[in-house]
Amino acid sequence: MRAWELHARPGFEALTEVTREPRPLGARDVRVRIHAVSLNYRDIVLARGAHTRARTPPVIAGSDGAGEVVEVGPSVQRLRPGDRVAGLFFPTWLDGEISAAHHASALGGAHDGMMAEEVVLDETAWIKVPSHLSYAQAATLPCAGVTAYHALFEKTRLGPGDTLLVQGTGGVAMFALQLAKAVGARVVVTSRSAAKHERARALGADHVIDYVATPAWGEAVWIWTGGVGVDMVVDVGGPGTFDQSVAALRFGGTMSLLGVLTGVRGEINTYGIFHKALRVHGIYVGSARMFESLNRAITATALEPVVDRVFTFDEVPAAYEYLAGGHHIGKVVVTI
Amino acid sequence: MRAWELHARPGFEALTEVTREPRPLGARDVRVRIHAVSLNYRDIVLARGAHTRARTPPVIAGSDGAGEVVEVGPSVQRLRPGDRVAGLFFPTWLDGEISAAHHASALGGAHDGMMAEEVVLDETAWIKVPSHLSYAQAATLPCAGVTAYHALFEKTRLGPGDTLLVQGTGGVAMFALQLAKAVGARVVVTSRSAAKHERARALGADHVIDYVATPAWGEAVWIWTGGVGVDMVVDVGGPGTFDQSVAALRFGGTMSLLGVLTGVRGEINTYGIFHKALRVHGIYVGSARMFESLNRAITATALEPVVDRVFTFDEVPAAYEYLAGGHHIGKVVVTI
Amino acid sequence: MRAWELHARPGFEALTEVTREPRPLGARDVRVRIHAVSLNYRDIVLARGAHTRARTPPVIAGSDGAGEVVEVGPSVQRLRPGDRVAGLFFPTWLDGEISAAHHASALGGAHDGMMAEEVVLDETAWIKVPSHLSYAQAATLPCAGVTAYHALFEKTRLGPGDTLLVQGTGGVAMFALQLAKAVGARVVVTSRSAAKHERARALGADHVIDYVATPAWGEAVWIWTGGVGVDMVVDVGGPGTFDQSVAALRFGGTMSLLGVLTGVRGEINTYGIFHKALRVHGIYVGSARMFESLNRAITATALEPVVDRVFTFDEVPAAYEYLAGGHHIGKVVVTI
Amino acid sequence: MRAWELHARPGFEALTEVTREPRPLGARDVRVRIHAVSLNYRDIVLARGAHTRARTPPVIAGSDGAGEVVEVGPSVQRLRPGDRVAGLFFPTWLDGEISAAHHASALGGAHDGMMAEEVVLDETAWIKVPSHLSYAQAATLPCAGVTAYHALFEKTRLGPGDTLLVQGTGGVAMFALQLAKAVGARVVVTSRSAAKHERARALGADHVIDYVATPAWGEAVWIWTGGVGVDMVVDVGGPGTFDQSVAALRFGGTMSLLGVLTGVRGEINTYGIFHKALRVHGIYVGSARMFESLNRAITATALEPVVDRVFTFDEVPAAYEYLAGGHHIGKVVVTI
Repeated sequence: MRAWELHARPGFEALTEVTREPRPLGARDVRVRIHAVSLNYRDIVLARGAHTRARTPPVIAGSDGAGEVVEVGPSVQRLRPGDRVAGLFFPTWLDGEISAAHHASALGGAHDGMMAEEVVLDETAWIKVPSHLSYAQAATLPCAGVTAYHALFEKTRLGPGDTLLVQGTGGVAMFALQLAKAVGARVVVTSRSAAKHERARALGADHVIDYVATPAWGEAVWIWTGGVGVDMVVDVGGPGTFDQSVAALRFGGTMSLLGVLTGVRGEINTYGIFHKALRVHGIYVGSARMFESLNRAITATALEPVVDRVFTFDEVPAAYEYLAGGHHIGKVVVTI
Repeated sequence: MRAWELHARPGFEALTEVTREPRPLGARDVRVRIHAVSLNYRDIVLARGAHTRARTPPVIAGSDGAGEVVEVGPSVQRLRPGDRVAGLFFPTWLDGEISAAHHASALGGAHDGMMAEEVVLDETAWIKVPSHLSYAQAATLPCAGVTAYHALFEKTRLGPGDTLLVQGTGGVAMFALQLAKAVGARVVVTSRSAAKHERARALGADHVIDYVATPAWGEAVWIWTGGVGVDMVVDVGGPGTFDQSVAALRFGGTMSLLGVLTGVRGEINTYGIFHKALRVHGIYVGSARMFESLNRAITATALEPVVDRVFTFDEVPAAYEYLAGGHHIGKVVVTI
Repeated sequence: MRAWELHARPGFEALTEVTREPRPLGARDVRVRIHAVSLNYRDIVLARGAHTRARTPPVIAGSDGAGEVVEVGPSVQRLRPGDRVAGLFFPTWLDGEISAAHHASALGGAHDGMMAEEVVLDETAWIKVPSHLSYAQAATLPCAGVTAYHALFEKTRLGPGDTLLVQGTGGVAMFALQLAKAVGARVVVTSRSAAKHERARALGADHVIDYVATPAWGEAVWIWTGGVGVDMVVDVGGPGTFDQSVAALRFGGTMSLLGVLTGVRGEINTYGIFHKALRVHGIYVGSARMFESLNRAITATALEPVVDRVFTFDEVPAAYEYLAGGHHIGKVVVTI
Repeated sequence: MRAWELHARPGFEALTEVTREPRPLGARDVRVRIHAVSLNYRDIVLARGAHTRARTPPVIAGSDGAGEVVEVGPSVQRLRPGDRVAGLFFPTWLDGEISAAHHASALGGAHDGMMAEEVVLDETAWIKVPSHLSYAQAATLPCAGVTAYHALFEKTRLGPGDTLLVQGTGGVAMFALQLAKAVGARVVVTSRSAAKHERARALGADHVIDYVATPAWGEAVWIWTGGVGVDMVVDVGGPGTFDQSVAALRFGGTMSLLGVLTGVRGEINTYGIFHKALRVHGIYVGSARMFESLNRAITATALEPVVDRVFTFDEVPAAYEYLAGGHHIGKVVVTI
């Protein structure tokens, strides 16, 4: 079986194509022939840092895969060969709140991931995907789709007439935009390029704003709402966007904080959280139940995940390079 | 000023047209020229029971009115003449949970209601209505619109991919259908007539079922969902529909109980609530904040409330008779 | 291995002592030497109905057992021999909401239960118990303890200064009383006997009421609260107590409906739910996470579960008879 | 009537004793003879900044007063002369979420406050206080008491067996400690002085930690919890304590952010919020309903607010100096 592992080499040279023996199948296990894997910013961070935390043996890269069930263990009940499935980002997080143990189960970091021809996981770690999606589209769901669903509908619940601010046009942002429009919310998108503005509008954005031309975009958005503020921000930037997110929010509004695009620490205005009585929720993907809910939402609203570009299995390093370039709208996918 | 009061006479003869002196305006009061009043099943109950609880002096009928601000007291800040507004069903319930005191403030029961050329209430009891609605449409909001919003989005929150069951085609049911479709939910409507089925489908119903032809409609709906059950029921019937609502729900599902169309007490299966771990929420209209949220939702989704038939101010008893006949789809309105 | 099974015979003659082969141990399984089993009203219902739904082979009775780990499968990580544990009532319900599948996993009904010298279950189905509890006390937790915790702290959350009404002095009622007092709530207990009144007061009850002498006890409780009503009722009766529970509650109050002591259906006042904007939650035991939370609460507050009487393993039918007699305060337990 | 106003002078010289004409009484107004006013850190900030935002006319200082009703307007229904009351920090925030308008209504900043012999406010802005409290104790409730209640029981709900971390021994911290112990939670207190440690332990603290001797106190607390983390932190520091608060919390834990003792902005680890899936709630005092709930909790648990030192009305500047010194445990109060 072919697979891409992360080895202890600098940059994307860490990505190493190898041949692995197929894993044996336990009683509750399900073997899936992977057809597509989508990339996340986390994959870039993990690849770039692979030389600093060499794992022996090396782990298979990638967390978000979709494919077809080819073999099931004797105790498996929910799935059978031929089922179209995607894997859980945290294979042990089925329902309820995240725990340290669930967190440690994430694929593609400490444990083998999805960038392989075949993957074996417990049956509970595989979720059936909506029938109208291609495998490339289905592979966008485990992290980006579930994260957006979690942010919008689990901690608080975005509803019709609410206003959402999303940052950029990455995978989570585009899912958040599409899901928000599906429930009758208004959406503002920040982005620096005219092409991305156009695409965001085509997907339903009510307002777009260039965060380079308007550094105080938070206040600009606040003004756009008539001086009320937005109900929710999906913040993918972290420290570099935090203050503007706070400026954009209404009193009692919600920030779903889920990204590190501008770093892991920085100076922020903590007074704003207190003063405006905000809720800041750290959102780290989600559970199997949230994935099932996302799928119901996608099916009911015929949502089509935004796939920016598809690479072949031979082009995995190129796919990483492309994602790192930051010119994408939606998700970057590798098909196998 | 002309108005319709409830006097101590049997049946709809209780409805009595009178002339009243205009009420003086307090510092925080707002005077509204009423243009439309919508009727609720509660108005029928109150009119029919007026002879059993004669009030001296008699109260003006009706709870749900919309109109134009014509005069404001010196301390009023939120409104000015010309504003298009509707009144709160419970004038003192601004935010948070209902209390016995809020409950006692309901219009058209113990206190003068809306079936009059002019109404004076505290400024906090008037809510600006969406600009795309006519006064007849705006008059449908205070009870039916707010109730449906409360049931779907406040206690729990109906979301994309969820399944809702609504009973009949009355005012609350049609708002619930429209709001549920606006957020990407699937909706089942129970109704006895082919014409109502057709209308429900035109408004987006995914499935309709004749509850006369299929007395075990709860189980039929459960089967339609693939043996899972619906996420939420808006139960307007009460004891006569309770058991079928329970049968239709999934484990952990929610019933919003808000009507008395089949009576105020009856034999029900309490075991089902326990066994299926259901939540049953009594929903009695809603607060000013919910009304504001409803308006945001209506504006964002360009929702058009369903007005079945409009009567003139001279035809108030005929309007009551028509509503009591039960052939309506959506709301019955009186324009002034 | 000795065990008590339910065979197809009338009444408590259904209880049959047998010898079983020990179950083989799977990779994730844990074998527990059972030291104590507590009885629930459900056990009485199951035993009495055993002749109407004969199972081949018969199942072992009882759902709530506690004991000591004696053997673990090779993949087991959380537990080791010597650990003091109790089993989950629903072995598959770990976190989140109940589902039909979790519901079907209950012990002692369709699946072998706990009335045996040894029981083998997946490691996730065993929960470590507080160290200050005896096995007899620990055996009271899986159904009664978890149910009370769920009712008071999961759906809504009883807090300091809130008022709770509990019905009777059974296992759930006594846990609810103790947990409510531990958080500074006021508690009213309904009971018919002076001895039970005295015991309830000794456990902290602020008020007791004889429901036979005062049939309108709901209104009496409402008056006792100064005409406000209680915040929560733990209703173990069902149809026969429902209306009085409604009468006792405040506007917006919560009823946790979890029992069938007066039957599974009956005439109730549905209008009250609607009129008072009540929430009625069906509470059916709870998840592993709730059990862990209960244990933290029991440890932090040094709570001692109320064990009424302990029977030996030879006296199982006598224990069922005693519980059916209804003279107990707290739980009836069998030690092995 | 004597009062202390904030005039445009540097430091606590801004505090100026004046004589004011009594305010006329509106129809819904209530006049209260103030007996005690408690100070908050906010009062120090406002006094020190008074010269930068001179108000004409100057406003009366102080936000938290308690006293006796001496006169009520003709429309007042809830109160009558002789009632013992305290004022709302935000006089217009009665229930539901905070809004910008409620926020702008705060006393002692833009509007006249409580440091006066008499205060007139709308009847809804006065809350009856528990009968076992002195006026000095009652004056500690409007900001510190309500804030602690809001943090612990409104956004999420601290329960029995949960673990809370509170910072320091100020007014909010001591209320949080006392309320947490009243519901069976475990509490850790950070403080630098042995005397404060001793007092915290006397009030029930399960663990105390010297944040000067142990700069990585967050990790130390995490270790104390057995590597699980605390369920909730009441963070009164802001940027200077944020990272340690994050380090102390469990996955999915809650930070109630409500202070600015270390500043209004600073460098923090935003990744931690995301990584641990934390919730950070900005808590800014609370509503009238929360105040009523606090009072019920205080009454039910016989809680005695911690008053550190009482000053006379002539000593107002000295009281400010004392609070600024930071040696207090609980609240500093002025009696009139």
